[in-house]
Amino acid sequence: MGRRTDRRRMTQVSFADEQISTRTRAQTVAVEEPLEIRVAGTSLTVTMRLPGDDMELVHGLLLGEGLIHHRDDLLVARYCADTDTMNVIDVTLAEGPRPLPINAQRTLVMHGGCGLCGKASIDAVTASVGAIEIRGEVDVRVVRSLPQKLTEEQQTFGRTGGTHAAGLFTAAGETVVVREDVGRHNAVDKVLGWALINDRDVTDDVLMVSSRASFEIVQKAAMAGVGILSCVSAPSQLAIDAAAETGVTLIAFNRGERLTICSHPERVLIPSSPVHQA
Amino acid sequence: MGRRTDRRRMTQVSFADEQISTRTRAQTVAVEEPLEIRVAGTSLTVTMRLPGDDMELVHGLLLGEGLIHHRDDLLVARYCADTDTMNVIDVTLAEGPRPLPINAQRTLVMHGGCGLCGKASIDAVTASVGAIEIRGEVDVRVVRSLPQKLTEEQQTFGRTGGTHAAGLFTAAGETVVVREDVGRHNAVDKVLGWALINDRDVTDDVLMVSSRASFEIVQKAAMAGVGILSCVSAPSQLAIDAAAETGVTLIAFNRGERLTICSHPERVLIPSSPVHQA
Repeated sequence: MGRRTDRRRMTQVSFADEQISTRTRAQTVAVEEPLEIRVAGTSLTVTMRLPGDDMELVHGLLLGEGLIHHRDDLLVARYCADTDTMNVIDVTLAEGPRPLPINAQRTLVMHGGCGLCGKASIDAVTASVGAIEIRGEVDVRVVRSLPQKLTEEQQTFGRTGGTHAAGLFTAAGETVVVREDVGRHNAVDKVLGWALINDRDVTDDVLMVSSRASFEIVQKAAMAGVGILSCVSAPSQLAIDAAAETGVTLIAFNRGERLTICSHPERVLIPSSPVHQA
Repeated sequence: MGRRTDRRRMTQVSFADEQISTRTRAQTVAVEEPLEIRVAGTSLTVTMRLPGDDMELVHGLLLGEGLIHHRDDLLVARYCADTDTMNVIDVTLAEGPRPLPINAQRTLVMHGGCGLCGKASIDAVTASVGAIEIRGEVDVRVVRSLPQKLTEEQQTFGRTGGTHAAGLFTAAGETVVVREDVGRHNAVDKVLGWALINDRDVTDDVLMVSSRASFEIVQKAAMAGVGILSCVSAPSQLAIDAAAETGVTLIAFNRGERLTICSHPERVLIPSSPVHQA
Protein backbone atom coordinates (compact mmCIF):
# COMPACT_ATOMS: atom_id res chain seq x y z
CA MET A 1 0.00 0.00 0.00
CA GLY A 2 1.59 3.21 -1.21
CA ARG A 3 0.14 5.36 1.53
CA ARG A 4 2.41 4.03 4.27
CA THR A 5 5.59 5.97 3.55
CA ASP A 6 6.54 9.27 1.99
CA ARG A 7 9.76 11.20 1.48
CA ARG A 8 10.85 14.51 3.02
CA ARG A 9 14.03 16.51 2.56
CA MET A 10 16.05 16.62 5.80
CA THR A 11 19.53 17.53 7.01
CA GLN A 12 21.51 14.89 8.87
CA VAL A 13 24.18 16.19 11.23
CA SER A 14 26.82 13.80 12.54
CA PHE A 15 29.41 14.38 15.24
CA ALA A 16 31.82 11.52 14.55
CA ASP A 17 35.32 12.14 15.95
CA GLU A 18 34.06 15.51 17.26
CA GLN A 19 33.89 16.82 13.71
CA ILE A 20 30.55 18.15 12.55
CA SER A 21 29.41 17.08 9.09
CA THR A 22 26.08 17.59 7.36
CA ARG A 23 24.21 15.90 4.54
CA THR A 24 20.89 17.09 3.13
CA ARG A 25 18.74 14.64 1.20
CA ALA A 26 15.24 13.17 0.93
CA GLN A 27 14.57 10.45 3.48
CA THR A 28 11.71 8.00 3.86
CA VAL A 29 9.28 8.67 6.72
CA ALA A 30 6.18 6.87 7.98
CA VAL A 31 2.87 8.47 7.01
CA GLU A 32 0.54 9.53 9.85
CA GLU A 33 -3.14 10.27 9.15
CA PRO A 34 -6.24 10.60 11.33
CA LEU A 35 -8.84 7.81 11.30
CA GLU A 36 -12.31 8.53 12.60
CA ILE A 37 -14.48 5.60 13.66
CA ARG A 38 -18.23 6.19 13.64
CA VAL A 39 -20.93 3.87 14.96
CA ALA A 40 -24.21 4.29 13.07
CA GLY A 41 -23.08 7.74 11.97
CA THR A 42 -22.02 9.01 15.39
CA SER A 43 -18.34 9.64 16.05
CA LEU A 44 -16.79 7.19 18.49
CA THR A 45 -13.13 8.21 18.36
CA VAL A 46 -10.35 9.66 16.23
CA THR A 47 -6.92 8.02 16.25
CA MET A 48 -3.75 9.09 14.45
CA ARG A 49 -2.52 6.02 12.57
CA LEU A 50 -0.35 4.57 9.82
CA PRO A 51 -2.80 4.08 6.94
CA GLY A 52 -3.55 0.49 5.98
CA ASP A 53 -5.14 -2.49 7.73
CA ASP A 54 -7.88 -0.06 8.76
CA MET A 55 -10.63 -2.67 9.05
CA GLU A 56 -8.44 -4.72 11.38
CA LEU A 57 -7.75 -1.59 13.43
CA VAL A 58 -11.48 -0.90 13.74
CA HIS A 59 -12.27 -4.46 14.82
CA GLY A 60 -9.43 -4.51 17.34
CA LEU A 61 -10.29 -1.15 18.83
CA LEU A 62 -13.96 -2.07 19.28
CA LEU A 63 -12.91 -5.41 20.82
CA GLY A 64 -10.54 -3.73 23.27
CA GLU A 65 -13.26 -1.31 24.35
CA GLY A 66 -15.71 -4.15 24.95
CA LEU A 67 -18.13 -2.96 22.24
CA ILE A 68 -17.85 -6.23 20.31
CA HIS A 69 -16.78 -9.70 21.42
CA HIS A 70 -17.10 -11.72 18.21
CA ARG A 71 -16.82 -10.83 14.54
CA ASP A 72 -20.56 -11.34 14.12
CA ASP A 73 -21.18 -8.48 16.56
CA LEU A 74 -20.07 -6.13 13.78
CA LEU A 75 -22.46 -6.26 10.81
CA VAL A 76 -20.89 -3.74 8.44
CA ALA A 77 -17.77 -1.58 8.40
CA ARG A 78 -17.07 0.66 5.42
CA TYR A 79 -15.33 3.85 4.44
CA CYS A 80 -17.76 6.77 4.42
CA ALA A 81 -18.75 7.81 0.94
CA ASP A 82 -19.38 11.42 1.95
CA THR A 83 -15.70 12.22 2.47
CA ASP A 84 -13.09 12.01 -0.25
CA THR A 85 -10.36 10.55 1.96
CA MET A 86 -10.15 7.00 3.27
CA ASN A 87 -10.00 8.30 6.84
CA VAL A 88 -13.56 7.80 8.10
CA ILE A 89 -15.07 4.36 8.72
CA ASP A 90 -18.68 3.83 9.74
CA VAL A 91 -19.67 0.60 11.46
CA THR A 92 -23.03 -0.98 12.16
CA LEU A 93 -23.22 -3.16 15.25
CA ALA A 94 -25.52 -6.17 15.53
CA GLU A 95 -27.31 -5.02 18.67
CA GLY A 96 -27.15 -3.01 21.83
CA PRO A 97 -27.53 0.69 22.50
CA ARG A 98 -25.51 3.16 20.50
CA PRO A 99 -22.20 3.53 22.39
CA LEU A 100 -21.07 6.82 23.82
CA PRO A 101 -17.86 8.38 22.57
CA ILE A 102 -14.99 6.34 24.03
CA ASN A 103 -13.82 9.04 26.37
CA ALA A 104 -17.25 9.41 27.92
CA GLN A 105 -17.52 5.64 28.32
CA ARG A 106 -14.20 5.45 30.12
CA THR A 107 -15.35 8.07 32.54
CA LEU A 108 -18.49 6.12 33.36
CA VAL A 109 -16.86 2.72 33.50
CA MET A 110 -13.83 3.62 35.54
CA HIS A 111 -15.64 5.27 38.41
CA GLY A 112 -15.85 2.37 40.82
CA GLY A 113 -16.84 2.52 44.46
CA CYS A 114 -13.57 4.18 45.41
CA GLY A 115 -13.82 6.96 42.87
CA LEU A 116 -11.54 6.96 39.86
CA CYS A 117 -8.46 4.86 40.54
CA GLY A 118 -6.29 2.13 39.13
CA LYS A 119 -8.28 -0.56 40.92
CA ALA A 120 -11.48 0.68 39.30
CA SER A 121 -9.73 0.59 35.91
CA ILE A 122 -8.82 -3.05 36.46
CA ASP A 123 -12.30 -3.91 37.74
CA ALA A 124 -13.79 -2.52 34.54
CA VAL A 125 -11.67 -4.95 32.51
CA THR A 126 -12.20 -8.00 34.73
CA ALA A 127 -15.95 -7.39 34.59
CA SER A 128 -15.80 -7.63 30.80
CA VAL A 129 -13.31 -10.48 30.60
CA GLY A 130 -15.28 -12.69 32.98
CA ALA A 131 -13.92 -15.95 34.33
CA ILE A 132 -10.29 -16.60 33.59
CA GLU A 133 -9.75 -19.67 31.42
CA ILE A 134 -7.01 -22.20 31.85
CA ARG A 135 -4.46 -21.29 29.23
CA GLY A 136 -1.47 -22.84 27.57
CA GLU A 137 2.22 -22.73 28.35
CA VAL A 138 5.20 -21.39 26.48
CA ASP A 139 8.90 -22.22 26.57
CA VAL A 140 10.96 -19.23 27.71
CA ARG A 141 13.33 -19.78 24.77
CA VAL A 142 10.43 -19.21 22.38
CA VAL A 143 9.57 -15.96 24.17
CA ARG A 144 13.20 -14.90 23.90
CA SER A 145 13.16 -15.43 20.12
CA LEU A 146 10.19 -13.14 19.45
CA PRO A 147 11.75 -9.63 19.45
CA GLN A 148 14.04 -10.69 16.60
CA LYS A 149 11.15 -12.27 14.67
CA LEU A 150 9.07 -9.13 15.16
CA THR A 151 11.86 -6.89 13.89
CA GLU A 152 12.36 -9.04 10.80
CA GLU A 153 8.73 -8.47 9.79
CA GLN A 154 8.79 -4.70 10.35
CA GLN A 155 9.05 -3.48 6.78
CA THR A 156 8.03 0.11 7.44
CA PHE A 157 10.27 0.39 10.49
CA GLY A 158 13.24 -0.79 8.46
CA ARG A 159 12.72 2.10 6.06
CA THR A 160 11.69 4.82 8.48
CA GLY A 161 12.63 3.91 12.07
CA GLY A 162 9.27 5.43 12.90
CA THR A 163 6.84 2.62 13.68
CA HIS A 164 5.91 0.33 16.51
CA ALA A 165 4.95 -3.28 15.83
CA ALA A 166 2.81 -5.97 17.38
CA GLY A 167 2.79 -9.61 16.40
CA LEU A 168 0.90 -12.77 17.24
CA PHE A 169 3.00 -15.93 17.51
CA THR A 170 2.17 -19.54 18.33
CA ALA A 171 3.57 -21.18 21.45
CA ALA A 172 5.98 -22.95 19.09
CA GLY A 173 7.28 -19.57 17.92
CA GLU A 174 5.66 -19.50 14.48
CA THR A 175 4.62 -16.09 13.19
CA VAL A 176 0.85 -15.74 12.82
CA VAL A 177 0.54 -12.04 11.97
CA VAL A 178 2.59 -8.85 12.41
CA ARG A 179 1.27 -5.32 12.02
CA GLU A 180 2.93 -1.89 12.28
CA ASP A 181 1.69 1.56 13.20
CA VAL A 182 2.95 4.97 14.28
CA GLY A 183 1.13 4.25 17.57
CA ARG A 184 1.71 1.15 19.66
CA HIS A 185 -1.98 0.92 20.62
CA ASN A 186 -2.96 0.88 16.96
CA ALA A 187 -0.46 -1.86 16.12
CA VAL A 188 -1.97 -4.03 18.86
CA ASP A 189 -5.51 -3.24 17.68
CA LYS A 190 -4.62 -4.26 14.12
CA VAL A 191 -3.23 -7.63 15.24
CA LEU A 192 -6.13 -8.45 17.56
CA GLY A 193 -8.60 -7.17 14.96
CA TRP A 194 -7.02 -9.54 12.42
CA ALA A 195 -7.48 -12.41 14.86
CA LEU A 196 -11.14 -11.50 15.40
CA ILE A 197 -11.87 -11.21 11.68
CA ASN A 198 -10.17 -14.55 11.06
CA ASP A 199 -11.90 -16.18 14.04
CA ARG A 200 -8.56 -17.28 15.51
CA ASP A 201 -8.44 -18.72 19.04
CA VAL A 202 -5.60 -16.71 20.60
CA THR A 203 -5.77 -18.39 24.00
CA ASP A 204 -2.43 -20.16 23.55
CA ASP A 205 -0.77 -17.47 21.41
CA VAL A 206 1.87 -14.98 22.48
CA LEU A 207 1.32 -11.28 21.69
CA MET A 208 4.67 -9.52 21.25
CA VAL A 209 4.73 -5.70 21.31
CA SER A 210 7.68 -3.41 20.54
CA SER A 211 6.97 -1.00 23.38
CA ARG A 212 6.44 -0.59 27.09
CA ALA A 213 3.69 -2.55 28.87
CA SER A 214 1.07 -0.03 29.93
CA PHE A 215 -2.37 -0.70 31.38
CA GLU A 216 -4.11 -0.19 28.06
CA ILE A 217 -1.95 -2.76 26.25
CA VAL A 218 -2.79 -5.33 28.95
CA GLN A 219 -6.45 -4.35 28.68
CA LYS A 220 -6.46 -5.04 24.94
CA ALA A 221 -4.73 -8.41 25.40
CA ALA A 222 -7.14 -9.44 28.17
CA MET A 223 -10.23 -8.37 26.23
CA ALA A 224 -9.05 -10.43 23.24
CA GLY A 225 -8.36 -13.48 25.42
CA VAL A 226 -4.60 -13.58 24.76
CA GLY A 227 -2.82 -15.73 27.34
CA ILE A 228 0.72 -14.39 27.11
CA LEU A 229 1.80 -10.79 26.48
CA SER A 230 5.45 -9.95 25.89
CA CYS A 231 6.83 -6.39 25.62
CA VAL A 232 10.26 -5.01 24.75
CA SER A 233 10.29 -2.36 27.49
CA ALA A 234 9.22 -1.68 31.07
CA PRO A 235 5.86 -2.49 32.68
CA SER A 236 3.89 -0.05 34.80
CA GLN A 237 2.56 -1.09 38.21
CA LEU A 238 -1.01 -0.97 36.88
CA ALA A 239 -0.11 -3.12 33.87
CA ILE A 240 1.31 -5.78 36.20
CA ASP A 241 -1.70 -5.69 38.50
CA ALA A 242 -4.15 -5.82 35.58
CA ALA A 243 -2.32 -8.79 34.04
CA ALA A 244 -2.27 -10.62 37.37
CA GLU A 245 -6.01 -10.14 37.85
CA THR A 246 -7.10 -10.96 34.30
CA GLY A 247 -5.00 -14.12 33.98
CA VAL A 248 -2.49 -12.73 31.50
CA THR A 249 1.16 -13.79 31.76
CA LEU A 250 3.01 -10.48 31.33
CA ILE A 251 6.64 -10.53 30.20
CA ALA A 252 8.59 -7.25 30.05
CA PHE A 253 12.09 -6.04 29.13
CA ASN A 254 12.19 -8.79 26.47
CA ARG A 255 15.30 -7.77 24.56
CA GLY A 256 16.84 -11.08 23.59
CA GLU A 257 19.54 -11.31 26.25
CA ARG A 258 17.16 -11.25 29.19
CA LEU A 259 13.50 -10.83 30.08
CA THR A 260 11.33 -10.34 33.16
CA ILE A 261 8.20 -12.34 34.00
CA CYS A 262 5.82 -9.97 35.81
CA SER A 263 2.68 -12.07 36.34
CA HIS A 264 1.53 -15.71 36.15
CA PRO A 265 5.03 -17.17 35.77
CA GLU A 266 3.57 -20.68 36.09
CA ARG A 267 2.84 -20.71 32.38
CA VAL A 268 6.42 -19.98 31.31
CA LEU A 269 8.47 -23.18 31.04
CA ILE A 270 12.09 -22.69 32.01
CA PRO A 271 14.33 -25.66 31.21
CA SER A 272 16.79 -26.41 33.97
CA SER A 273 20.36 -25.66 33.02
CA PRO A 274 23.49 -25.16 35.06
CA VAL A 275 24.44 -21.54 35.59
CA HIS A 276 28.05 -20.93 34.71
CA GLN A 277 29.80 -18.31 36.78
CA ALA A 278 32.03 -15.99 34.82
CA MET B 1 6.14 12.21 46.00
CA GLY B 2 5.62 8.66 47.22
CA ARG B 3 2.97 7.82 44.67
CA ARG B 4 5.34 7.67 41.71
CA THR B 5 6.87 4.23 42.19
CA ASP B 6 5.89 0.94 43.76
CA ARG B 7 7.45 -2.50 44.05
CA ARG B 8 6.30 -5.79 42.52
CA ARG B 9 7.77 -9.28 42.76
CA MET B 10 9.08 -10.43 39.37
CA THR B 11 11.27 -13.14 37.89
CA GLN B 12 14.23 -12.07 35.78
CA VAL B 13 15.47 -14.62 33.25
CA SER B 14 18.89 -14.14 31.67
CA PHE B 15 20.43 -16.05 28.76
CA ALA B 16 24.08 -15.13 29.16
CA ASP B 17 26.43 -17.61 27.49
CA GLU B 18 23.37 -19.61 26.37
CA GLN B 19 22.78 -20.68 29.98
CA ILE B 20 19.40 -19.86 31.46
CA SER B 21 19.40 -18.41 34.97
CA THR B 22 16.54 -16.95 36.97
CA ARG B 23 16.23 -14.57 39.89
CA THR B 24 12.96 -13.68 41.63
CA ARG B 25 12.79 -10.48 43.69
CA ALA B 26 10.83 -7.27 44.20
CA GLN B 27 11.61 -4.59 41.62
CA THR B 28 10.66 -0.94 41.44
CA VAL B 29 8.06 -0.01 38.82
CA ALA B 30 6.45 3.27 37.77
CA VAL B 31 2.93 3.85 39.06
CA GLU B 32 0.17 4.39 36.47
CA GLU B 33 -3.19 5.87 37.50
CA PRO B 34 -6.08 7.46 35.61
CA LEU B 35 -6.59 11.22 35.79
CA GLU B 36 -9.95 12.67 34.81
CA ILE B 37 -10.12 16.33 33.86
CA ARG B 38 -13.51 18.01 34.22
CA VAL B 39 -14.48 21.49 33.07
CA ALA B 40 -17.23 22.97 35.25
CA GLY B 41 -18.21 19.49 36.34
CA THR B 42 -18.37 17.93 32.86
CA SER B 43 -15.80 15.31 31.92
CA LEU B 44 -13.33 16.49 29.28
CA THR B 45 -10.92 13.56 29.12
CA VAL B 46 -9.31 10.70 31.05
CA THR B 47 -5.59 10.08 30.69
CA MET B 48 -3.45 7.33 32.24
CA ARG B 49 -0.53 9.09 33.92
CA LEU B 50 2.31 8.94 36.43
CA PRO B 51 0.82 10.69 39.50
CA GLY B 52 2.34 14.03 40.44
CA ASP B 53 2.61 17.42 38.72
CA ASP B 54 -1.10 17.04 38.00
CA MET B 55 -1.87 20.77 37.90
CA GLU B 56 0.90 21.23 35.33
CA LEU B 57 -0.51 18.35 33.32
CA VAL B 58 -3.97 19.92 33.33
CA HIS B 59 -2.66 23.33 32.24
CA GLY B 60 -0.54 21.80 29.48
CA LEU B 61 -3.31 19.59 28.16
CA LEU B 62 -5.79 22.47 27.99
CA LEU B 63 -3.15 24.63 26.29
CA GLY B 64 -2.40 21.95 23.70
CA GLU B 65 -6.09 21.58 22.91
CA GLY B 66 -6.51 25.33 22.45
CA LEU B 67 -8.92 25.66 25.39
CA ILE B 68 -6.65 28.13 27.21
CA HIS B 69 -3.89 30.39 25.92
CA HIS B 70 -2.71 32.14 29.08
CA ARG B 71 -2.67 31.13 32.73
CA ASP B 72 -5.38 33.71 33.46
CA ASP B 73 -7.74 31.79 31.18
CA LEU B 74 -7.96 29.15 33.91
CA LEU B 75 -9.58 30.55 37.05
CA VAL B 76 -9.54 27.53 39.37
CA ALA B 77 -8.22 23.96 39.18
CA ARG B 78 -8.68 21.65 42.17
CA TYR B 79 -9.03 18.00 43.07
CA CYS B 80 -12.69 17.01 43.36
CA ALA B 81 -13.78 16.64 46.97
CA ASP B 82 -16.47 14.10 46.10
CA THR B 83 -13.98 11.35 45.26
CA ASP B 84 -11.52 9.94 47.74
CA THR B 85 -8.63 9.60 45.28
CA MET B 86 -6.53 12.42 43.86
CA ASN B 87 -7.45 11.37 40.34
CA VAL B 88 -10.17 13.85 39.38
CA ILE B 89 -9.48 17.55 38.80
CA ASP B 90 -12.20 20.08 38.07
CA VAL B 91 -11.29 23.35 36.36
CA THR B 92 -13.18 26.58 35.92
CA LEU B 93 -12.35 28.55 32.79
CA ALA B 94 -12.52 32.34 32.64
CA GLU B 95 -14.88 32.53 29.69
CA GLY B 96 -16.19 30.92 26.57
CA PRO B 97 -18.67 28.11 26.03
CA ARG B 98 -18.27 24.89 27.91
CA PRO B 99 -15.97 22.74 25.75
CA LEU B 100 -17.06 19.44 24.30
CA PRO B 101 -15.23 16.27 25.32
CA ILE B 102 -11.85 16.32 23.57
CA ASN B 103 -12.66 13.52 21.19
CA ALA B 104 -15.80 15.24 19.97
CA GLN B 105 -13.87 18.48 19.50
CA ARG B 106 -11.24 16.78 17.40
CA THR B 107 -13.89 15.36 15.15
CA LEU B 108 -15.41 18.79 14.57
CA VAL B 109 -12.15 20.64 14.19
CA MET B 110 -10.38 18.22 11.93
CA HIS B 111 -13.04 17.97 9.26
CA GLY B 112 -11.75 20.53 6.80
CA GLY B 113 -12.93 21.08 3.26
CA CYS B 114 -11.31 17.85 2.09
CA GLY B 115 -12.87 15.66 4.73
CA LEU B 116 -10.76 14.25 7.52
CA CYS B 117 -7.10 14.22 6.53
CA GLY B 118 -3.64 15.19 7.67
CA LYS B 119 -3.89 18.58 5.97
CA ALA B 120 -7.06 19.36 7.90
CA SER B 121 -5.30 18.34 11.13
CA ILE B 122 -2.51 20.81 10.42
CA ASP B 123 -4.95 23.55 9.42
CA ALA B 124 -6.70 23.17 12.78
CA VAL B 125 -3.40 23.88 14.55
CA THR B 126 -2.27 26.74 12.31
CA ALA B 127 -5.67 28.40 12.77
CA SER B 128 -5.08 28.40 16.54
CA VAL B 129 -1.42 29.30 16.44
CA GLY B 130 -1.95 32.30 14.20
CA ALA B 131 0.91 34.23 12.64
CA ILE B 132 4.31 32.64 13.04
CA GLU B 133 6.67 34.78 15.08
CA ILE B 134 10.34 35.30 14.35
CA ARG B 135 12.11 33.02 16.77
CA GLY B 136 15.61 32.49 18.11
CA GLU B 137 18.47 30.31 17.03
CA VAL B 138 20.28 27.44 18.68
CA ASP B 139 23.77 26.00 18.24
CA VAL B 140 23.63 22.40 16.99
CA ARG B 141 26.13 21.42 19.71
CA VAL B 142 23.64 22.55 22.35
CA VAL B 143 20.92 20.43 20.74
CA ARG B 144 23.29 17.48 20.73
CA SER B 145 23.88 17.83 24.49
CA LEU B 146 20.21 17.64 25.44
CA PRO B 147 19.46 13.87 25.42
CA GLN B 148 22.18 13.35 28.04
CA LYS B 149 20.90 16.25 30.15
CA LEU B 150 17.37 14.90 29.94
CA THR B 151 18.46 11.43 31.02
CA GLU B 152 20.37 12.81 33.99
CA GLU B 153 17.17 14.40 35.32
CA GLN B 154 15.01 11.29 34.87
CA GLN B 155 14.83 10.07 38.43
CA THR B 156 11.88 7.73 37.97
CA PHE B 157 13.29 6.30 34.74
CA GLY B 158 16.55 5.51 36.47
CA ARG B 159 14.68 3.36 38.98
CA THR B 160 12.06 1.80 36.73
CA GLY B 161 13.05 2.09 33.06
CA GLY B 162 9.38 2.82 32.56
CA THR B 163 8.93 6.53 31.93
CA HIS B 164 9.25 9.01 29.13
CA ALA B 165 10.59 12.49 29.78
CA ALA B 166 10.27 15.97 28.34
CA GLY B 167 12.41 18.94 29.22
CA LEU B 168 12.63 22.62 28.46
CA PHE B 169 16.13 24.01 27.92
CA THR B 170 17.46 27.47 27.09
CA ALA B 171 19.26 28.08 23.80
CA ALA B 172 22.45 28.07 25.90
CA GLY B 173 21.66 24.53 27.05
CA GLU B 174 20.60 25.31 30.63
CA THR B 175 17.91 23.09 32.08
CA VAL B 176 14.67 24.97 32.79
CA VAL B 177 12.38 22.09 33.77
CA VAL B 178 12.16 18.32 33.24
CA ARG B 179 9.09 16.16 33.82
CA GLU B 180 8.45 12.41 33.53
CA ASP B 181 5.39 10.34 32.82
CA VAL B 182 4.36 6.85 31.71
CA GLY B 183 3.01 8.58 28.59
CA ARG B 184 5.08 10.84 26.37
CA HIS B 185 2.13 13.16 25.73
CA ASN B 186 1.67 13.67 29.45
CA ALA B 187 5.35 14.45 29.99
CA VAL B 188 5.13 17.16 27.33
CA ASP B 189 1.89 18.51 28.83
CA LYS B 190 3.52 18.75 32.28
CA VAL B 191 6.47 20.73 30.95
CA LEU B 192 4.40 23.12 28.86
CA GLY B 193 1.88 23.45 31.71
CA TRP B 194 4.74 24.39 34.03
CA ALA B 195 5.81 27.08 31.56
CA LEU B 196 2.26 28.45 31.36
CA ILE B 197 1.81 28.54 35.14
CA ASN B 198 5.17 30.27 35.52
CA ASP B 199 4.45 32.69 32.66
CA ARG B 200 7.66 31.71 30.87
CA ASP B 201 8.28 32.91 27.33
CA VAL B 202 9.31 29.67 25.57
CA THR B 203 9.85 31.25 22.15
CA ASP B 204 13.63 30.75 22.26
CA ASP B 205 13.62 27.55 24.33
CA VAL B 206 14.23 24.02 23.11
CA LEU B 207 11.74 21.29 24.04
CA MET B 208 13.48 17.91 24.24
CA VAL B 209 11.33 14.74 24.25
CA SER B 210 12.49 11.16 24.84
CA SER B 211 10.28 9.66 22.15
CA ARG B 212 9.29 9.75 18.51
CA ALA B 213 8.03 12.97 16.93
CA SER B 214 4.37 12.44 16.18
CA PHE B 215 1.82 15.01 15.01
CA GLU B 216 0.38 15.51 18.47
CA ILE B 217 3.77 16.32 20.00
CA VAL B 218 4.35 18.98 17.33
CA GLN B 219 0.82 20.26 17.94
CA LYS B 220 1.54 20.73 21.64
CA ALA B 221 4.83 22.53 20.94
CA ALA B 222 3.24 24.81 18.37
CA MET B 223 0.27 25.66 20.59
CA ALA B 224 2.66 26.60 23.41
CA GLY B 225 4.80 28.75 21.11
CA VAL B 226 7.97 26.65 21.43
CA GLY B 227 10.45 27.48 18.67
CA ILE B 228 12.57 24.33 18.61
CA LEU B 229 11.44 20.74 19.25
CA SER B 230 13.97 17.93 19.53
CA CYS B 231 13.07 14.23 19.78
CA VAL B 232 15.14 11.10 20.39
CA SER B 233 13.40 8.98 17.73
CA ALA B 234 11.85 9.15 14.29
CA PRO B 235 9.44 11.78 12.95
CA SER B 236 6.25 10.98 11.07
CA GLN B 237 5.47 12.70 7.78
CA LEU B 238 2.61 14.60 9.39
CA ALA B 239 4.85 15.77 12.26
CA ILE B 240 7.33 17.19 9.75
CA ASP B 241 4.63 18.91 7.71
CA ALA B 242 2.95 20.34 10.83
CA ALA B 243 6.28 21.67 12.14
CA ALA B 244 7.10 23.24 8.76
CA GLU B 245 3.73 25.01 8.62
CA THR B 246 3.62 26.21 12.22
CA GLY B 247 7.17 27.57 12.28
CA VAL B 248 8.63 24.92 14.57
CA THR B 249 12.18 23.70 13.96
CA LEU B 250 11.83 19.93 14.32
CA ILE B 251 14.90 17.85 15.13
CA ALA B 252 14.62 14.05 15.20
CA PHE B 253 16.86 11.01 15.83
CA ASN B 254 18.75 13.14 18.41
CA ARG B 255 20.86 10.47 20.07
CA GLY B 256 24.09 12.22 20.84
CA GLU B 257 26.18 10.94 17.94
CA ARG B 258 23.96 12.36 15.23
CA LEU B 259 20.67 14.14 14.67
CA THR B 260 18.36 15.07 11.79
CA ILE B 261 16.88 18.52 11.18
CA CYS B 262 13.44 18.02 9.63
CA SER B 263 12.04 21.55 9.32
CA HIS B 264 13.21 25.18 9.50
CA PRO B 265 16.93 24.34 9.54
CA GLU B 266 17.73 28.06 9.26
CA ARG B 267 17.47 28.42 13.02
CA VAL B 268 20.06 25.73 13.77
CA LEU B 269 23.58 27.17 13.79
CA ILE B 270 26.17 24.69 12.52
CA PRO B 271 29.79 25.81 13.05
CA SER B 272 31.97 25.07 10.09
CA SER B 273 34.53 22.38 10.76
CA PRO B 274 36.59 20.21 8.47
CA VAL B 275 35.27 16.72 7.98
CA HIS B 276 37.92 14.08 8.50
CA GLN B 277 37.65 11.02 6.35
CA ALA B 278 38.29 7.77 8.12
